Amino acid sequence: MVNNEGKDNKLEKMRHSAAHVMAEAVQSVFPEARFGIGPAIENGFYYDFELPRSLTPDDLPVIEAKMAEIIAADKPFINEEVSKEEASKLFAAQPYKLELIDEIPDEKVGLYRQGSFVDLCRGPHVSSTGEIKTFKLVSIAGAYWRGSENNPMLQRIYGLLFLSDKEMDDYLELQEELKKRDHRKIGKDLDLFVFSDLVGKGLPLFTEKGSIIRRELEQFVVDEETKRGYKHVYTPDLANIALYKTSGHYPYYKDSMYPVMKVEEEELMLRPMTCPHHFELYSSKPRSYRELPFRIAELAKQFRYEKSGELTGLMRVRSFCLADSHIICQPDQAIDEINSVLDLIEYVASVLGLKAGDNYHYRLSLGDRKDEVKYYHDDAAWDFAEEVLRTVLVQRKASYFEAEKEAAFYGPKIDIQMRNFAGKEDTAFTVQYDFVMPKRFGLTYIDKDQTEKEPIVIHRSSIGAIERTMAFLIEHYAGALPVWLAPVQVMVIPVADRHLEYARKLGVELTGEGVRAKVDDRSERMNLKIRQAQLEKVPFMLVVGDKEEAEGTVSVRLRSGEQLSSQPFERFKDTVQITIASKSKD
Amino acid sequence: MVNNEGKDNKLEKMRHSAAHVMAEAVQSVFPEARFGIGPAIENGFYYDFELPRSLTPDDLPVIEAKMAEIIAADKPFINEEVSKEEASKLFAAQPYKLELIDEIPDEKVGLYRQGSFVDLCRGPHVSSTGEIKTFKLVSIAGAYWRGSENNPMLQRIYGLLFLSDKEMDDYLELQEELKKRDHRKIGKDLDLFVFSDLVGKGLPLFTEKGSIIRRELEQFVVDEETKRGYKHVYTPDLANIALYKTSGHYPYYKDSMYPVMKVEEEELMLRPMTCPHHFELYSSKPRSYRELPFRIAELAKQFRYEKSGELTGLMRVRSFCLADSHIICQPDQAIDEINSVLDLIEYVASVLGLKAGDNYHYRLSLGDRKDEVKYYHDDAAWDFAEEVLRTVLVQRKASYFEAEKEAAFYGPKIDIQMRNFAGKEDTAFTVQYDFVMPKRFGLTYIDKDQTEKEPIVIHRSSIGAIERTMAFLIEHYAGALPVWLAPVQVMVIPVADRHLEYARKLGVELTGEGVRAKVDDRSERMNLKIRQAQLEKVPFMLVVGDKEEAEGTVSVRLRSGEQLSSQPFERFKDTVQITIASKSKD
Repeated sequence: MVNNEGKDNKLEKMRHSAAHVMAEAVQSVFPEARFGIGPAIENGFYYDFELPRSLTPDDLPVIEAKMAEIIAADKPFINEEVSKEEASKLFAAQPYKLELIDEIPDEKVGLYRQGSFVDLCRGPHVSSTGEIKTFKLVSIAGAYWRGSENNPMLQRIYGLLFLSDKEMDDYLELQEELKKRDHRKIGKDLDLFVFSDLVGKGLPLFTEKGSIIRRELEQFVVDEETKRGYKHVYTPDLANIALYKTSGHYPYYKDSMYPVMKVEEEELMLRPMTCPHHFELYSSKPRSYRELPFRIAELAKQFRYEKSGELTGLMRVRSFCLADSHIICQPDQAIDEINSVLDLIEYVASVLGLKAGDNYHYRLSLGDRKDEVKYYHDDAAWDFAEEVLRTVLVQRKASYFEAEKEAAFYGPKIDIQMRNFAGKEDTAFTVQYDFVMPKRFGLTYIDKDQTEKEPIVIHRSSIGAIERTMAFLIEHYAGALPVWLAPVQVMVIPVADRHLEYARKLGVELTGEGVRAKVDDRSERMNLKIRQAQLEKVPFMLVVGDKEEAEGTVSVRLRSGEQLSSQPFERFKDTVQITIASKSKD
Repeated sequence: MVNNEGKDNKLEKMRHSAAHVMAEAVQSVFPEARFGIGPAIENGFYYDFELPRSLTPDDLPVIEAKMAEIIAADKPFINEEVSKEEASKLFAAQPYKLELIDEIPDEKVGLYRQGSFVDLCRGPHVSSTGEIKTFKLVSIAGAYWRGSENNPMLQRIYGLLFLSDKEMDDYLELQEELKKRDHRKIGKDLDLFVFSDLVGKGLPLFTEKGSIIRRELEQFVVDEETKRGYKHVYTPDLANIALYKTSGHYPYYKDSMYPVMKVEEEELMLRPMTCPHHFELYSSKPRSYRELPFRIAELAKQFRYEKSGELTGLMRVRSFCLADSHIICQPDQAIDEINSVLDLIEYVASVLGLKAGDNYHYRLSLGDRKDEVKYYHDDAAWDFAEEVLRTVLVQRKASYFEAEKEAAFYGPKIDIQMRNFAGKEDTAFTVQYDFVMPKRFGLTYIDKDQTEKEPIVIHRSSIGAIERTMAFLIEHYAGALPVWLAPVQVMVIPVADRHLEYARKLGVELTGEGVRAKVDDRSERMNLKIRQAQLEKVPFMLVVGDKEEAEGTVSVRLRSGEQLSSQPFERFKDTVQITIASKSKD
């Protein structure tokens, strides 16, 4: 039996039919094969078999060839219905099929035949094997019968199938590219970060090179936010559980929080968010309306216990550093503040080379007035807050869509939906309007009229979690990061040993100007050095030989392989400094 | 009875005698007074009393005057010995004295009389009250009888006593100065950091201003260390307990470590030191002798659970950020490396305005070959390592002293002994030679001859824990930090509202050049603004009025109160930028 529910479109039918054809081909190679199931899946199909020996990759071309023969023979798919008894006789040698037949509630069961091959199946299929287009068998995997580890392990063959060679090629190319861009692979190749079993899962250790990228990103965010009127602070990574009870995070987020550490008189917990710490800082003295908007920001370490199965390189970790902020302001300052926040987000994204529309867009996540369990009950506050966010997005003519019932407990939010290289979309971070926490923490300010009033809070990030942003950028740029982020920005390569002194002089001058330059002074061939610097994604290689030394010039090569004309060293030095300072992409 | 052990020097006797005189004076004011004990202490004396009412500060001059009378009367102190029975009769109305008499093991007990006043006491005393010099009663405190909270609470009066008025004045002045310099007071006055009960004890929250100081210090250390060939990294704040079992920190440092957090398959702990993380980074791939010395550095958060009674502002906290480093090198590179480390330490200290000899000096802490429990057993390694450290100190002609049995478990160390404003000396941080951890973590490198060898490790800091350094600097500079560290570097103060525009223009220009400038645009009097900026320890105040605006000049005032001659704004701007960039003190 194969997957047979509502698969009526052409491609689905073709993929499902290819699974039958593969089963026939396998049977011709292994007459004693026992069959499991073989459905159509995204991009192709698979079939599970019990075989007398383990398959190897060498088996795949043989099976593919047999499939090609069956397709060339253009055998029609013939559907028939038989009684369960008849079917059981037909599949007497197929225990897995018998198990399936046994469980079918109807009197009759469906069969599909192509030539002499028959399979238990409700269809639908293409009309004959000749209609099956471009396919390719790609891998072999073990799979327990019906997914249970108490059952026998079968052998699964995966195949791809597309309507055209072009589609197949595009798909394979994308897969190849994704594999090359995987930040875990690049992180290893470029020596950016490592993991250690002794340290623990999901806890990356950044090497010197990875740390340079991280520090540049952090410095950029702190500088830019400070320029825009944020107060950058440091608050502790842990707090008494009382703080999280006040905020309501505990026990609400208990499952992803690290457990309590009881010592002496305290019950401490690693923090899963920064907001309560920032509120305590705000509340440390009385505040006046003159101090609002009060924009507290922090490169805040946060700790959430992700399940080990969900950990993915730097994308999903157990401790991360969020460029976090809480803007405490009067409700009528919210529109201006959120506008400024989106200005900042768009600026930061543009510096990273990301464009609104192409790489990310906004989602307005709304509450549900009727759901008083999931959302704090205050219709007027919800109406006001949602209208504030909508107004901002409309004012800016931002492209966005609205999502019902996606808000936070304490108010609506704008999600920054980031699209990765594979086209997958994810919420990178959010801008949240909060009218609940100020009540819980008793946040107040003295207004012009000397009365005490309650502010609102805007929770926001500007670049998200540094680890995740690094992962995203590494994949986006396939490791060839913009010059300002490159761990090594310039590699000076002497043509021969006699040019080493000149090379070192250039290296020292560049380093003195704050350029991250290195001299490859190993006794290796120049071409090897160039190739290695290219593999390390060093933006500029300065090749220097007799001519360069005599003229005080450098021969510049880019990591793309492009070779620029020889130029005076001073000019190169100015250019590279401008490139770095302006954070331009190349 | 008063403290009566080995107090035979002049000053001790005088202080002890003053306690008796104070007791007599109190008795003349409160005839029903019951007496506890009254010893000499550092800088003076105290006596505990049970009185019919609570004392107030107004009582002190009255008692002081009575004491002056007794001293003027020049009554001799007369010693006698009586039987316990006789003593019990004498002190029949003094239950605390009776309790003491009861516990004296001897047959006879000592008494001291001056005039009609008699006290249970073994002495010694000065010969007569007239010898008692400069004294002053300073405070009243509650004190449980014999220090136990199960006993009645008595009232304690503290007095100071010195040999001369000059000594008294100097002492009082120092106390006044220490109180003014207390970083907890300045931290509050200048709004640098706060604590929150909800967050927890010993966990400071740095405000915007405190965070500016912290960030400047951190940036300075990272930049300077990077310049000197350190690889600055980021490693996780926590790790599996297995890491600390490998290093031997667990269970050895268990008492000051936060408890284990068990989740899923892991047992995680906040890290009390950074070394094991750095070793894991080193071991993440094979290393060659060409990579040594391998200097890993980090601004590393560390977590140690200090008892609540030991927490002191930023000096002793429960989570701190150490400028930490581990230099992995060949043993014969150690002398050069440690020399470089001391160069760095002395440079960092000099930038902070601290001088070797005046503010800090070195201590060479040695092991003990015979103590194999406290110190790793390897005589040859200890001999070699101690000689390396000694050689470095001698080569540099550093002033240092040697301390036996003060080494770490894994090797000898150089302690940086910092002296605070009160003259108290403390180990600020250390440079340690370690030949044990490389074995435990299996650290190796491939040498020139292709054989695998074991490196040694130098543990070091350059500036210590950022929190502690901040506390030290705040006290050292009484809040008036060097310009590069000042949260606000320039305050522009318009003489009248009509100069606001010019003031703002200057503010924008300074900010644009990276100077932390503010404009005091409040509708307050100019003099008040100047006074407030001075109190806030702002290094430069630019007062601008008609004349300054017309001429494009500024009138510069320093926080010391000094007023500089009027100067062109451009010149001031250049000067302040140079001052900041050079990290000079003023």
